[in-house]
Amino acid sequence: MKQSQLFTKTFKEKPAGEESVNAILLQRAGFIYKEMAGVYSFLPLGLRTLNKITSIIREEMNSIGGQEVHLSVLQPRELWQKTGRWDKGIGKEVIYKCENDSIGLGPTHEEMLTDIISRYIQSEDDLPAYVYQIQTKFRKEARAKSGLLRGREFPMKDLYSFHKDEADFKKYYEKVKAAYLKIFSRCGLKAIVTEASGGDFTKEFSHEFQVLSKDGEDTIIFCPSGDFSQNVEITKYKSGDKCPACGAVLEKESSIEAGNIFPLGDKFSKALGALFTTSQGERRPIVMGCYGIGISRLMGAIVEIHHDKHGIIWPKETAPFAAHLIALHKAERETEKIYQKLRVGGMEVLLDDRQDKSAGEKFAEADLIGIPLRLVISENTLKQKSVELKRRNQEKTQLIKIAQLDEKIIKQVVRAV
Amino acid sequence: MKQSQLFTKTFKEKPAGEESVNAILLQRAGFIYKEMAGVYSFLPLGLRTLNKITSIIREEMNSIGGQEVHLSVLQPRELWQKTGRWDKGIGKEVIYKCENDSIGLGPTHEEMLTDIISRYIQSEDDLPAYVYQIQTKFRKEARAKSGLLRGREFPMKDLYSFHKDEADFKKYYEKVKAAYLKIFSRCGLKAIVTEASGGDFTKEFSHEFQVLSKDGEDTIIFCPSGDFSQNVEITKYKSGDKCPACGAVLEKESSIEAGNIFPLGDKFSKALGALFTTSQGERRPIVMGCYGIGISRLMGAIVEIHHDKHGIIWPKETAPFAAHLIALHKAERETEKIYQKLRVGGMEVLLDDRQDKSAGEKFAEADLIGIPLRLVISENTLKQKSVELKRRNQEKTQLIKIAQLDEKIIKQVVRAV
Repeated sequence: MKQSQLFTKTFKEKPAGEESVNAILLQRAGFIYKEMAGVYSFLPLGLRTLNKITSIIREEMNSIGGQEVHLSVLQPRELWQKTGRWDKGIGKEVIYKCENDSIGLGPTHEEMLTDIISRYIQSEDDLPAYVYQIQTKFRKEARAKSGLLRGREFPMKDLYSFHKDEADFKKYYEKVKAAYLKIFSRCGLKAIVTEASGGDFTKEFSHEFQVLSKDGEDTIIFCPSGDFSQNVEITKYKSGDKCPACGAVLEKESSIEAGNIFPLGDKFSKALGALFTTSQGERRPIVMGCYGIGISRLMGAIVEIHHDKHGIIWPKETAPFAAHLIALHKAERETEKIYQKLRVGGMEVLLDDRQDKSAGEKFAEADLIGIPLRLVISENTLKQKSVELKRRNQEKTQLIKIAQLDEKIIKQVVRAV
Repeated sequence: MKQSQLFTKTFKEKPAGEESVNAILLQRAGFIYKEMAGVYSFLPLGLRTLNKITSIIREEMNSIGGQEVHLSVLQPRELWQKTGRWDKGIGKEVIYKCENDSIGLGPTHEEMLTDIISRYIQSEDDLPAYVYQIQTKFRKEARAKSGLLRGREFPMKDLYSFHKDEADFKKYYEKVKAAYLKIFSRCGLKAIVTEASGGDFTKEFSHEFQVLSKDGEDTIIFCPSGDFSQNVEITKYKSGDKCPACGAVLEKESSIEAGNIFPLGDKFSKALGALFTTSQGERRPIVMGCYGIGISRLMGAIVEIHHDKHGIIWPKETAPFAAHLIALHKAERETEKIYQKLRVGGMEVLLDDRQDKSAGEKFAEADLIGIPLRLVISENTLKQKSVELKRRNQEKTQLIKIAQLDEKIIKQVVRAV
């Protein structure tokens, strides 16, 4: 894409009323637009990054057998009344309601999917089933002050699993745990699996994936060796105590909850009549689990972790483009040739072809936007029939011959970021 | 994907309370699930088809310079009050409202996008801009009885264009018209460009893309030679009149509106202060157009047109899978080999590997689901080291050697459907 055609611009000024790093940088760089507190629109660069993160999540969900669906946002009151969640708890506090309180905007989809599943799953042979969606959730958040970290409207991946018994559920729960760690790692985040309350669903722990961040809204007590972590909301431990697993000294830090997984037992299947017939002919409620990742929250968390004073530094797989091609020289024809060469080679490139910006302005904007790989075309590099390669957060540069910018080189370059 | 793992099933019975062909067939085949009147969830097969249609639309929008965004569903009342559309017309009749009528669920996004654009577009150099999204719309439809043809919640592609003057707008308007015809043609639909009211926006006509269908909610007067069509809502002509363009006899038919395009003039830009500075230093309102396609409505229209008494017959590019591989023989290892061969060759295949279904049941379900290309593995074909190829709506079959099922053959086969 050519920057001269991108309709967004970058801003030097901090947007009014924003305190969080992610909201400030993403708005300044033209990734998102604030509509209301906790409600953001995604502009071309922002949607590209959101889609990259979504693709990572989708790949990992498919790899553990997930079947993708897209459930409706509008949910009838009657469905929520069956589990008793319409008039209290989440239904009272979180659900946006319209049409004389007869319809709610889905804050989550346990009720709806369990209802659907009950129509299709009859016998033990139909189990297990793993069903996920990538879809917009709506929640009346009292405090929505952390940019993308806490939204009133936000894209979420929610996976639900359906099993014949606890043993089968537990196996899959561990599989999802591993898939989640892979997702966060691909997004450049080190997530700590943290025990948390199971809420109304279960007496067991649920698990959160916490990313250490000084501006996070959560706090965890954890062992630096990685074998223990609990949310302060439930822990009996405090900073300085000994790790119950290895004896090391526990630490306390602020963190961002990037995902969570929940054992649901048979709470929903019983309430909604989602039963199956065992091979012995017995009718039993389906055992369930649910697994969530807030996709825009993840995008916000990445920015909280990966930035410097100049702007964002996207981890490779989450960048809106693989490379930022910056033309400092007005040799349009030469620039176009290099741009097309990279595109034909399969590289997603943002070309800064603007004629009315100085080199300084272009670099400052590129720093703010944060594409990790930069390729610069200048009078000097053209003399050497080369482009200059630089990583977003490194000083070192290297020259690559234009003639050598073939598919293989491009792949090497992309891998090296 | 293996059908034994697909959580949905097909149903022989007509779903209660549905009259329209698309709603009946899509529910029986397990593509969609009805949550409320006009509100459907998309199950794995349905989501796949929806995504195929979305990809076609996205490709054609990108090819005419569209920049994709994703705007929020939640919209503040204040924005709609600026154009006077909150308390009357669309705002009064169509917008779902919550939080004491302070927030609406977007039925369309002219107000929001014009507001965003006004922040970014300052001068003539910033124009034109073409911005689109693929996003869920919400509309309180009084009558939502036609399945996917009229939804209260439905995915839509909405494109908006921003121009310095009418002349530039008109050029792009024709470009979108051509792109729309290409989209409908790729979806297997013959759309008739039909003049309709410009509504509150303009004294000029808007244009609808009407697909002839006896159960359509619209009616058009059109010339069979293709050079004239008007919606009965605005026409002075009647069936039997002479075509004002060529003199042929005009006809009257029911039809489905599959898309529409609107000149917006400066109605929204004036109301929302979206002005730009001309090269002569003058401040002027941006000239706008908007262009919509209801994506699920398009899916419904395809089913209305492409079905027979046995089920759906998907046009090639819209099918959930390129081929339905049906294993009638219990030679699991051989079947798995063929399945993997097709997948490695890049073919999206639904494998009916179910052991508890008869050949008759499998074919009946395949007819209902409607994947246009069928590959059958039976004891007989295996003896000949072949699979049998059949098109969904043709009797003729042909044998293809398993050894020859390489990438080239697969591509030929896919093209031939």
